[in-house]
Amino acid sequence: MAPLKVYGNVFSTATQRVFACLHEKNLDYDFVNVDLSTEEHKQPPYLARNPFGLVPAFEDGDLKLFESRAITLHVSYAYQANGTPLMAEDKKMPIQSVWMEVEAHQFEPTTGKLVWEVVFKPMLGMTTDDEEVVESEKKLEEVLEVYEARLKESKYLGGECFTLADLHHLPNIQCLFGTPVKKHFEARPHVKAWCEDIMARPAWVKVIQKLSV
Amino acid sequence: MAPLKVYGNVFSTATQRVFACLHEKNLDYDFVNVDLSTEEHKQPPYLARNPFGLVPAFEDGDLKLFESRAITLHVSYAYQANGTPLMAEDKKMPIQSVWMEVEAHQFEPTTGKLVWEVVFKPMLGMTTDDEEVVESEKKLEEVLEVYEARLKESKYLGGECFTLADLHHLPNIQCLFGTPVKKHFEARPHVKAWCEDIMARPAWVKVIQKLSV
Repeated sequence: MAPLKVYGNVFSTATQRVFACLHEKNLDYDFVNVDLSTEEHKQPPYLARNPFGLVPAFEDGDLKLFESRAITLHVSYAYQANGTPLMAEDKKMPIQSVWMEVEAHQFEPTTGKLVWEVVFKPMLGMTTDDEEVVESEKKLEEVLEVYEARLKESKYLGGECFTLADLHHLPNIQCLFGTPVKKHFEARPHVKAWCEDIMARPAWVKVIQKLSV
Repeated sequence: MAPLKVYGNVFSTATQRVFACLHEKNLDYDFVNVDLSTEEHKQPPYLARNPFGLVPAFEDGDLKLFESRAITLHVSYAYQANGTPLMAEDKKMPIQSVWMEVEAHQFEPTTGKLVWEVVFKPMLGMTTDDEEVVESEKKLEEVLEVYEARLKESKYLGGECFTLADLHHLPNIQCLFGTPVKKHFEARPHVKAWCEDIMARPAWVKVIQKLSV
């Protein structure tokens, strides 16, 4: 069997989302670095893998995929028997789906902007737009209020078990915990406990170790 | 059996997404209008249905859902035997998933901004931000270039059959076809043919008829 292949960059939060899933599933994979500094992701060979020129891309034998959440969904279904079950049982899937959509349409747009402004811009020598940060932090607080209420009701977003609905949040949370934005997560006890719980998962710890080598 | 219930607004594109799915499935449902003009969606009774205060929300017996794409996913799986099969067969699901994610992360952010600027702002007596329109149209052209290439390869985004991956695009396409933004879709022959094909579906025609009563 051809090995699974991840094309991406270890600093890309979307690539990290795929790593997290593969580690939860105890799956071996080859990693092919895409050099963002030389715009390798905007050149034809990579564009054939992802026509939008974004990392990551993925290969499972003949199947070629892109979009991190489509990749994690495929891995979770195709390797159901491996490692952590990342999908709720059928009856509980609709609720997991709701929170996967909330991540995509509420959490990601807000935290994605913050990650760009307070993590990547300083790293790239660019100037943070303070107004954008204030506005995004306000929006983040509203989103986290809803999360706090949800996590009072159930240990994880989808229910009592860790699923993809939680996993998809990990890269942006990890990034923001290294910045002052962390305070908004820590101010809400159930959100704080959930963040600490999911960031301590052995699979995620392994993903983080990749960043320091 | 308690009837399916949609809580929303006929002018909301997200509500229309759910209508489109229910009509494709030939399912009866009750519609409960949420009065956006009096901010009914920001009051406690509605917030209990969707804590983010957005339409639509949905009920299927005891199951209460929100987020339009989580609702269409539930309906497509739970009522698999009804009407149009909106999910590809298992082996082809990963590719459908990719294009569902593309809609969510590439198409919706761009066309959602345009719908706001060129459809809803004028309707509400607000001033369109021309700079925002120019920028979003540029981004839309890039996105549609990728769609054109994809639709040269296969009749629909997920493959040879109409699925949720196509359906999720309908409300924003319909809105923008009533504006000058339409030209970007019409300039690309495969995109144009796809738009005309999916907008002519009897289920979608029924959704549009709701707007004129």
